[in-house]
Amino acid sequence: PPEGSLTPRRAQAPSASQPQRNSPSCRLPLWSGPSRRGPGTRDHPPAYTALRERLLAAVVTCFKRHGAAAIDTPVLELRETLMGKYGEEAKLIYELQDQGGELLALRYDLTVPFARYLAMNKITNMKRYHIAKVYRRDNPATTRGRYREFYQCDFDIAGQFDPMIPDAECLKIVHEILSDLQLGDFLIKVNDRRILNGIFAVCGIPESKFVTACCTVDKLDKVPWEEVRGEMVGEKGLSPEAADHIGEYVQLHGGLELIERLLQDPKLSQNKLAKEGLGDMKLLFEYLTLFGITGKISFDLSLARGLDYYTGVIFEAVLLQQENEHVEEPVSVGSVAGGGRYDGLVGMFDPKGRKVPCVGVSIGIERIFSILEQRMKASGEKVRTTETQVLVATPHKHLLAARLKLISELWAAGIKAEMLYKKDPKLLKQLQYCEDTGIPLAAIVGEQELTDGVVKLRDVATRVEVDIPREKLVDEIRRRLEP
Amino acid sequence: PPEGSLTPRRAQAPSASQPQRNSPSCRLPLWSGPSRRGPGTRDHPPAYTALRERLLAAVVTCFKRHGAAAIDTPVLELRETLMGKYGEEAKLIYELQDQGGELLALRYDLTVPFARYLAMNKITNMKRYHIAKVYRRDNPATTRGRYREFYQCDFDIAGQFDPMIPDAECLKIVHEILSDLQLGDFLIKVNDRRILNGIFAVCGIPESKFVTACCTVDKLDKVPWEEVRGEMVGEKGLSPEAADHIGEYVQLHGGLELIERLLQDPKLSQNKLAKEGLGDMKLLFEYLTLFGITGKISFDLSLARGLDYYTGVIFEAVLLQQENEHVEEPVSVGSVAGGGRYDGLVGMFDPKGRKVPCVGVSIGIERIFSILEQRMKASGEKVRTTETQVLVATPHKHLLAARLKLISELWAAGIKAEMLYKKDPKLLKQLQYCEDTGIPLAAIVGEQELTDGVVKLRDVATRVEVDIPREKLVDEIRRRLEP
Repeated sequence: PPEGSLTPRRAQAPSASQPQRNSPSCRLPLWSGPSRRGPGTRDHPPAYTALRERLLAAVVTCFKRHGAAAIDTPVLELRETLMGKYGEEAKLIYELQDQGGELLALRYDLTVPFARYLAMNKITNMKRYHIAKVYRRDNPATTRGRYREFYQCDFDIAGQFDPMIPDAECLKIVHEILSDLQLGDFLIKVNDRRILNGIFAVCGIPESKFVTACCTVDKLDKVPWEEVRGEMVGEKGLSPEAADHIGEYVQLHGGLELIERLLQDPKLSQNKLAKEGLGDMKLLFEYLTLFGITGKISFDLSLARGLDYYTGVIFEAVLLQQENEHVEEPVSVGSVAGGGRYDGLVGMFDPKGRKVPCVGVSIGIERIFSILEQRMKASGEKVRTTETQVLVATPHKHLLAARLKLISELWAAGIKAEMLYKKDPKLLKQLQYCEDTGIPLAAIVGEQELTDGVVKLRDVATRVEVDIPREKLVDEIRRRLEP
Repeated sequence: PPEGSLTPRRAQAPSASQPQRNSPSCRLPLWSGPSRRGPGTRDHPPAYTALRERLLAAVVTCFKRHGAAAIDTPVLELRETLMGKYGEEAKLIYELQDQGGELLALRYDLTVPFARYLAMNKITNMKRYHIAKVYRRDNPATTRGRYREFYQCDFDIAGQFDPMIPDAECLKIVHEILSDLQLGDFLIKVNDRRILNGIFAVCGIPESKFVTACCTVDKLDKVPWEEVRGEMVGEKGLSPEAADHIGEYVQLHGGLELIERLLQDPKLSQNKLAKEGLGDMKLLFEYLTLFGITGKISFDLSLARGLDYYTGVIFEAVLLQQENEHVEEPVSVGSVAGGGRYDGLVGMFDPKGRKVPCVGVSIGIERIFSILEQRMKASGEKVRTTETQVLVATPHKHLLAARLKLISELWAAGIKAEMLYKKDPKLLKQLQYCEDTGIPLAAIVGEQELTDGVVKLRDVATRVEVDIPREKLVDEIRRRLEP
């Protein structure tokens, strides 16, 4: 495949005239490893890596625009650190073999390690981002873009602040990133765990079942209410009346007017938690109005989010796709960002239980990457995987030394330069390499050029060649490559 | 500690006037995690991460200057993929618990995964770099800067080429990086596994003991010859005569003249492997002379390197330190880069055993980081951990809305801006935050400024304030921040 295709380059097999060099006898044991990867993992070839770096650069630019610092925590955490934080998902945690010493596991997300980091270092105030891989022993459905090892891309604000100001900034960040990346239309659903719990309370659900009810409601974005209701009544043992009552609430969505209506709701307005959550939701909408982004925000009572640790505002961004012109409602094509407030998590790691309120967002970089990758495949756009500016070439034999000297001069001047690793490559092969890999210039030295103290500079696209005095070559290359 | 110290920021405890907000009842199980990390791991706080990113950027710049593309492979590899590649070090591989499915392990280096990647995708030609974490179940001596989870930073050239051209480029890259980073004087030791094996052969060692003899010789950089000799005769069962004979060779080091002398050596010159290795070493020195870097290269017969997979040229860079003025020989302070040729590794992963010759280098980024970190601590230099350009501030109460509107205008223009997450912060606190975190400008809006349609732009260092018409603010900020 040509340069820039998303599958790896396969070079030609070595020609018969280039025999394999003799491998010496300090040889490896005669044992052949599997030429396979672990299940649910994948390699990222150059074109993929180049595209991913471009995407991550856009996200990091946004995080830095909002004043976040970067941190890094280990992939290996103590098993105990992760246990009890992820609810039903805990069975997906990868554990290391007991090879002596403490039991270790691979991080499941970046949030729990961040909370552990804050508590351990007694930090009560921090705005950080972290982009790194996390691990989930999921049943890999790799065709659907889910892997066992994948990148997360998190921005969090920790600290005791006035209500909803950091929460609003997290939503602003999601809005900025999804707009910057031009992924098409999107919607950010917002809810609050306190409102949900208030609903459960006024519907007569015992507090011990709030978490499990939450997990069930969370399925509403994938299955219809009838099915969720069935699970509540069947598996979770709620009464049919309670389930119906919950159903009346969690199918609502809207904006400020819905918040106002629920604040007047005879039952909900009597519940302390719900009132607190609705009051904050109103404040949040005020701030989002000042940010000018309410057009893409929906207060959606069906949003619950699976993880145990959320305590307040929760949100999730979905891309919308107009399935066809005749259908009015746009269709969600899946979540591309999510997050919320988790005020209790840091305290779990502090011996004295001191709390550090936190709110954060995770950008679904893998999902976004798949979309960009598909789009690029469809458009036939090529990604250059290297940044080489000049190929140092020779037109005939016995000029390896001349190439080595010239390329070293270019490297010393900071020019990105390559040469073929052959003693006597054909000029055509050298020029072909430029075209295959997108190198814009070739600097050619032959006997004549050496005698004249010049280098022939060739524009690969136009094939125009000009002799440049050797001492002016670096300046000329820089001039040619100016944007 | 102030901004830029290498320990994390600890903010003040929340004041009594800011009570902890009520945590709702969708609470986490009452289970407290340990506020500890796994043994031999560490967190990288913002100042560390910022410094490391600067260091990695310098290394990546060099890799790209040489035309390398980036790839990424999974941390999780099949256990079988790693087994049989690392000799005595294999016991340090982290294995995952058998939770059903195939047995997995954490990658031990980036070289074996690269070979697996090439074989699996049938790639016979590639120049790539890869910067990522690797895992070793080492006895953590964290005080000496060794961790169980650490970054590796690799550049490799795979393909069938003319002898020593890619090998010379790897050494050139080490030379460029160590020079660019201004780490002080350094020396790159070079040897060849074929020469070592030739020596073992002419000293009467059976081929089956080459690998173990190699591992023993490798200890010569840490312990004196007597001790190495003792291990050869005692543990490894070589004859005292053979050991002495080996000792005569492996204590030699020099340049081109030593290569010439050994090519004339009556015994070595009769050995096919040694002759091949010495011939290539001579060629390598020719190329390094053209690159102008032989001043820092030493052909050192004691260099063996521990790993099984090397088959040809091997090398290692050490920093030199003048211990005191009166001692003539500079002292090595440890290896900061290493690598070599491994022509057999890719073939181990190919069902038909097709070989892809490879040569590569790994930059010891962790060791280099420790040196830079110590140097920075000693100099008292500060690293800014964020890039915020402007703090949006208000001089009195009831102006949160004004701040939210102004900051959104700045973000929309791509300006990096922060504000405090308080409804009514004191101006002094806001300005103090600028000084603590190195923010150069404050954009202040009060009632008067709102009425006049201006923003007061304050230079934090000089404390000079100027009223700027609101519509010209973005341009003025950009102008002020020009380098």
